[in-house]
Amino acid sequence: MSPEPIDLLREGLEGRLGQQIGFVAEIGHLRTVMRTALVDGGRTRENDAEHSWHVALMAATLCEYADRPVDSSRVIRMLLVHDLVEIDAGDVMIYDEAGRQDQVARKLAAAERIFNVLPSDQAAEFRALWDEFEALQTAESVFARAIDCLQPMLLNYLGGGAAWREHGITADQVHRINRPIADGAPRLWDLARELIDDAVRRGWLPD
Amino acid sequence: MSPEPIDLLREGLEGRLGQQIGFVAEIGHLRTVMRTALVDGGRTRENDAEHSWHVALMAATLCEYADRPVDSSRVIRMLLVHDLVEIDAGDVMIYDEAGRQDQVARKLAAAERIFNVLPSDQAAEFRALWDEFEALQTAESVFARAIDCLQPMLLNYLGGGAAWREHGITADQVHRINRPIADGAPRLWDLARELIDDAVRRGWLPD
Repeated sequence: MSPEPIDLLREGLEGRLGQQIGFVAEIGHLRTVMRTALVDGGRTRENDAEHSWHVALMAATLCEYADRPVDSSRVIRMLLVHDLVEIDAGDVMIYDEAGRQDQVARKLAAAERIFNVLPSDQAAEFRALWDEFEALQTAESVFARAIDCLQPMLLNYLGGGAAWREHGITADQVHRINRPIADGAPRLWDLARELIDDAVRRGWLPD
Repeated sequence: MSPEPIDLLREGLEGRLGQQIGFVAEIGHLRTVMRTALVDGGRTRENDAEHSWHVALMAATLCEYADRPVDSSRVIRMLLVHDLVEIDAGDVMIYDEAGRQDQVARKLAAAERIFNVLPSDQAAEFRALWDEFEALQTAESVFARAIDCLQPMLLNYLGGGAAWREHGITADQVHRINRPIADGAPRLWDLARELIDDAVRRGWLPD
């Protein structure tokens, strides 16, 4: 059997640039991590690469609504890397609370492996962004999390609630699980509550 | 017929935030713009949303190779919006030179429509990023373009040259069309030439 192109690439490239190109190739797998939200008129599910792009640009668009002033460039970088660990750990729907507990250790192991494909200085830099996103102790991470919650809610609303119904999600769950929106961007939480109320009125979400 | 959720959203949201959320919903269509590059082991084509995420994070990873010092945050923002016009104008393969000429007017019309979904101050800000990317007159745009060329070349190499063969692309075309990599990042152009030479040796790309 002939070697895979990725192996050829790794052999042919040495040192720092080799590690960096190895990382660029590795992260491409984020395209194969499928999420719960339905897109394209309900014809397909969103994947993590599409989601990461959408939340990054959404943060650039909505950063004026952050509860505290944020460095929007740092928020964007954080959102570009926030789901890389799911290449190994997989996506768990935001409403699957038991699954998310279980996922914590898998995400940590994934962070160890994936960021360390990079040269050590960049591994530390990207890992710091991910740690910050997970720890929710800075204005940037709290706002990034708000956007990360609002985006699937918006997709679910735009999809007429199909993904909520499929998983038997209630309005109470949507309110409770998406509270990080209130912490990071109160005006966007007002919007989120309007969407939830409207979804209930239309029968897309049981009360 | 009941109204579509996107129309409900537009009616329910007024003013600035309504325009911004309209933009967030609009740009989601970038997921449906299919590109030429094959991904996921050749099983599917890449779409523009995935590509936009990949080039943004690739630029963050490789910015030390820019020919002139760059503001990497501006490069990232530019790459996040650079293909939005393809929601209306469609993607044209980099090697389809006639098609790309033809696409210029469609892209301009698309920029007029899509960025103006935003409030006027943000429409101007995002449009300026796109204009800068197209004009290639700044260090940031020249580097962004280099990354935008290198990414599909890397995917085509990692895919064993399938997309090149499918379109009858030659090594000479790959060298010629991807010269922006040399302008923006000479060290990455050395890498690109190594990939092309190796693809020729392996019979993935006719000389």
